[in-house]
Amino acid sequence: MTSLGIPQIPAFDQDAAKHALLHQDQLTKPPKSLGRLEELAVFYAGARGCFPVPTPKHAFLPVFGADHGVTVEGVSAFPAHLTAPILQNVVNGGAAISVLGRQHQVDLLAVDVGLTGDLVGSPQSRIPALNAKVRRGTRNLRVEDAMTQGEAIRAIEVGIDVALQRVTGGVDIVGMGEVGIGNTTASAALIAAFTGEAPARVTGTGTGVTTDGLQKKITVVTDAIHRLGQRRDPLDVAAALGGLEILAMAGFLLKCASLRVPVVLDGVIASAAALLAQGLCPASTAFLIASHRSTEPGIVAAQQLLGLRPLFDLEMRLGEGTGAVIGIALVRSAVALANEMDSFASAGLL
Amino acid sequence: MTSLGIPQIPAFDQDAAKHALLHQDQLTKPPKSLGRLEELAVFYAGARGCFPVPTPKHAFLPVFGADHGVTVEGVSAFPAHLTAPILQNVVNGGAAISVLGRQHQVDLLAVDVGLTGDLVGSPQSRIPALNAKVRRGTRNLRVEDAMTQGEAIRAIEVGIDVALQRVTGGVDIVGMGEVGIGNTTASAALIAAFTGEAPARVTGTGTGVTTDGLQKKITVVTDAIHRLGQRRDPLDVAAALGGLEILAMAGFLLKCASLRVPVVLDGVIASAAALLAQGLCPASTAFLIASHRSTEPGIVAAQQLLGLRPLFDLEMRLGEGTGAVIGIALVRSAVALANEMDSFASAGLL
Repeated sequence: MTSLGIPQIPAFDQDAAKHALLHQDQLTKPPKSLGRLEELAVFYAGARGCFPVPTPKHAFLPVFGADHGVTVEGVSAFPAHLTAPILQNVVNGGAAISVLGRQHQVDLLAVDVGLTGDLVGSPQSRIPALNAKVRRGTRNLRVEDAMTQGEAIRAIEVGIDVALQRVTGGVDIVGMGEVGIGNTTASAALIAAFTGEAPARVTGTGTGVTTDGLQKKITVVTDAIHRLGQRRDPLDVAAALGGLEILAMAGFLLKCASLRVPVVLDGVIASAAALLAQGLCPASTAFLIASHRSTEPGIVAAQQLLGLRPLFDLEMRLGEGTGAVIGIALVRSAVALANEMDSFASAGLL
Repeated sequence: MTSLGIPQIPAFDQDAAKHALLHQDQLTKPPKSLGRLEELAVFYAGARGCFPVPTPKHAFLPVFGADHGVTVEGVSAFPAHLTAPILQNVVNGGAAISVLGRQHQVDLLAVDVGLTGDLVGSPQSRIPALNAKVRRGTRNLRVEDAMTQGEAIRAIEVGIDVALQRVTGGVDIVGMGEVGIGNTTASAALIAAFTGEAPARVTGTGTGVTTDGLQKKITVVTDAIHRLGQRRDPLDVAAALGGLEILAMAGFLLKCASLRVPVVLDGVIASAAALLAQGLCPASTAFLIASHRSTEPGIVAAQQLLGLRPLFDLEMRLGEGTGAVIGIALVRSAVALANEMDSFASAGLL
């Protein structure tokens, strides 16, 4: 078995951040009056490693899709066979993320990391698709490891490869999206494993299961954590709980951090992926922005362990990267303000 | 003295809203999973009075500027003579609202409703300016009425006229901005008067006054409310407390509501203006969106009385309409999603 090559991640540039912070107080506004937009601009300079830093223009967001064996437990309100058609809908331009990507000029890529079905290209496709299938869905994480360690490494490498090939040249901000019926169960298990929180505290209704369904989900996550036992190596945890798309997101995140390209997290799935990335390389969290607090309860514990404070809460829980796109728009606004506002001196306001 | 002609405001279209709500559950997403973006799309259809409704494209945001006599009380961290230069900076393209307007394609107009200084046009001006001066600054609201009732009517009419002339044809969403050193004091007084809250609960640090400065502000607002006595007629209250730019915002809001063009409120000043508009015509609140909760405490009581729940809290307190622009971007996203997402049926996902 090959071992995972974790990308080397540079230090956050405190010096650039400090210059960006000092610059804020020169601008024509009461000090700190842009609130978290000022923080975002300072963060962006430190992450990119320079000040002044151009306003992020070229945004990229891959949507990783995979199926989950745990759906046999009845943990989702949606049938499992819909994962591939839903990702196909992203490709065809009719999904929520397709609309937001167009509106906010964020380039999308659909990536099949482990669908049981297959994406089909067609002349009508509006978004490119990549076949990087590691296996056709995971095994049922309740009763056995979701995948082998070799498969886990390959899934993470899919994400690394996507970053290597697509986060080049001009790409200066990224998000990550996902499609995978059953993946709030896998995320809850990962968050329980990494944070030590009780399954009942980090498991939510996902696409909208009933109270009975939620109870079943909590039991499944509890069983998975019990089965995990004392294993704490991040790669072990990842292979045990999956899913393939979550591992790919972790790999993508790590590679982007190594390239100094800030990663805007979406909801609970992306946050679970970020916890895995943190386990593999703690320095990666310095390059993350939490876009929103979704309605899934696990996101609270995950963001806390990541040290991230979400920018907004619009009670969203759709996934696909939808919250991340709005986060990217906010980062662009924040940096544009820092770059284009006049200073008191240049505006003659001293 | 002429009397104020309050624009006639139509009813919110419950039928269009209901169709928009039903449409949401046909789209390729778990029901309600876009959270408040779904609410926004439903609101927008009801306000515009049709479904389907085109995604708002032509956004307009006037920035009303005026000076405040109350600044002689030392209620601001900024010198009073800066109001005109700050609005000039908006015109010249270097203010925060100038940057956000460019970035989010929101057309701006600077309106002098009552600056003590004057705006100057120049070939470098990037944003049009309008001279609609009612008087050069208000009187000190602590010791006397800020303006006469005739001046109050004229200030409100400035806003109505701006809407009449600029919210035409294609404009399908608006915000409102303001510049006015001292205007968080006038807003706190208006909010205290309309909500009945104690001055200490609705008065904040504005541009950043010290603890002593805040105490002084609270005393000023308390004196103004005492001086107001039993007067509760909205126009009386407006004339007593000002400011000219706040009254113009109220007029602008009323006319936009009459045209079925939704108004995205910014922070505490816009919320005070909305309370005045509510006093003059309660039906106007049905056409409002509260973009954010700013750090000024008065906004909480104001939004509560208006029946509005803010979309986000980025700890902003800059004014100028900065939060409103971000709110406009969210409305556009919300309606674009409703218009461009596939339904389960059309995507073959049934």
